[in-house]
Amino acid sequence: MVTFVSVLKYEQLKVNKALEQELAAMPAPLRDIVGHVLMAGGKRLRPLLTLLSARLFGAEGPQLYELAVIPEMIHVATLLHDDVLDGAESRRGRKSAHLIYGTAPAILAGDALLAAASHKTASFNIPSLLTCVSEAVLMTAAGEAHEIALQGSLSHSLKEYVDIVAGKTGWLLKGSCRLGALYAGASEEQVEAISEYGLNLGIAFQIVDDALDFADEAVTGKPTAGDIMEGKYTPPIMKYVDFLSSGEREVFREKFRNGTFTDEDRVRIAADIRRLCFDAEARAMADQYIDKAQACLDALPRRFEQKVFREALDFVRNRKS
Amino acid sequence: MVTFVSVLKYEQLKVNKALEQELAAMPAPLRDIVGHVLMAGGKRLRPLLTLLSARLFGAEGPQLYELAVIPEMIHVATLLHDDVLDGAESRRGRKSAHLIYGTAPAILAGDALLAAASHKTASFNIPSLLTCVSEAVLMTAAGEAHEIALQGSLSHSLKEYVDIVAGKTGWLLKGSCRLGALYAGASEEQVEAISEYGLNLGIAFQIVDDALDFADEAVTGKPTAGDIMEGKYTPPIMKYVDFLSSGEREVFREKFRNGTFTDEDRVRIAADIRRLCFDAEARAMADQYIDKAQACLDALPRRFEQKVFREALDFVRNRKS
Repeated sequence: MVTFVSVLKYEQLKVNKALEQELAAMPAPLRDIVGHVLMAGGKRLRPLLTLLSARLFGAEGPQLYELAVIPEMIHVATLLHDDVLDGAESRRGRKSAHLIYGTAPAILAGDALLAAASHKTASFNIPSLLTCVSEAVLMTAAGEAHEIALQGSLSHSLKEYVDIVAGKTGWLLKGSCRLGALYAGASEEQVEAISEYGLNLGIAFQIVDDALDFADEAVTGKPTAGDIMEGKYTPPIMKYVDFLSSGEREVFREKFRNGTFTDEDRVRIAADIRRLCFDAEARAMADQYIDKAQACLDALPRRFEQKVFREALDFVRNRKS
Repeated sequence: MVTFVSVLKYEQLKVNKALEQELAAMPAPLRDIVGHVLMAGGKRLRPLLTLLSARLFGAEGPQLYELAVIPEMIHVATLLHDDVLDGAESRRGRKSAHLIYGTAPAILAGDALLAAASHKTASFNIPSLLTCVSEAVLMTAAGEAHEIALQGSLSHSLKEYVDIVAGKTGWLLKGSCRLGALYAGASEEQVEAISEYGLNLGIAFQIVDDALDFADEAVTGKPTAGDIMEGKYTPPIMKYVDFLSSGEREVFREKFRNGTFTDEDRVRIAADIRRLCFDAEARAMADQYIDKAQACLDALPRRFEQKVFREALDFVRNRKS
């Protein structure tokens, strides 16, 4: 863990420098709004995965940072669009871009970032990189659309939840790992192993995120149980709904469908979920995916980067916010 | 002209077939909404340009349709996003996608189409195609953002107007032509010549479009002078504003900035613009770009496609709707 966090911190600085160069190359009418989100901090987890993967398979040199910015540009494009479509008011501690610059510029800025990421990818002259990147964008959008189509419904299965999560979060983490391995010229088996690692890491990351949604707001300072307000049917909610009597369940179903929970409901349900350990049980579900990811690493070169990839799994398992 | 229109009609059928295949490959949660716009008709001008350009430089075979769908997928992605950001109610005679399926799915469907277009481009294994496509998307978004930044202002120049138009319309027509030439392995000079052709065709196309905005609604059946309602400062409006007395100009400026023209204003101003021939003068401005595009063709192979490219210019020059 010590290594992972210090590597993450160290690389953040270099990744941010590379991102600033990308920002400077953006067309003038979009530079401010793109910069508002692109340079607002963020863990830079996706670039780190690309860097580690490329180095694990023997690539090195400053050009790796040019590669590593690609998944972050895509990630920020999705953030810009997500904030518009969720009507979100803040992002990474700043007021949302669409509220400052307008909805239209926010949509266009996301489009431009997607295009800039493709352009950057094309500059490496390796067609497989582009297939990797465009698949990740396509599957991310599909995962989000799948989630929206099921919004407010309590009838879908855990399997469908995992499909959604694999799409909206897993595919870009998979793509981040895959990009580095393809660039480094890793063997097909190696590319697949690190891709699987990234996908499972991403699924685990999102499950933990969905469990953390029920954390005590007296501790975190953030509103709890936002997902029940947004009609997102996540594992802690699935367990909670199973636990309700059929009368209670009907009341819950109605409010979940129409997004009519009160703030009081929200805080009470979150407290119940914590008291009944449904958030902890959901985290235990994430462990299955962490174990799968772990297994993918076994066949890979025993280098420093492999150790950091292992620690990234502990980071996801243990994160508190 | 006879040739151009019949070639356009003939190819539309084959392009539509290829687009249907792309649609079938889209992720399930987005297929309906993408299909709503992708298969709603449309001239398929961009695919035609790609086909003609590829053939002019010696490429042939059914794979050309796979290439030709790329700029149309990008075009439809921008339509999906534009309708969200303009709050448009209809498109190609159908109710707008975002009004039927929701804003969030419309944004995601646009993102997915952009990604699918990149993915398709990557499948050709020619990195220059990707640079071409991603630049076109980037510049289109930048042109639209530039336009939005100047919305409601009467202070920018004709040069800035042309910059906007080159971005929002010219770059994708340029990209459509360029894509075919790069695929066919044309020489650098040839690639540049056909790119310049496409850019100038696109600028002319948009200038004519902006002149047609003032057509008589008793004739066209469509609301006239939408651009003054949207605060778009186009050539006929520039000429009209120059013609106003300074008192009238202040009143116009105020309403243009705030989008507060009445329907009566709109119809009266359009009638004035037609009576004073400011729409016809704007079309004469388009002729300059048509002439530039024409000149680009002179150095290119004297094949059937060159003739169709010439006729495309007459089509733009003479179009009435």
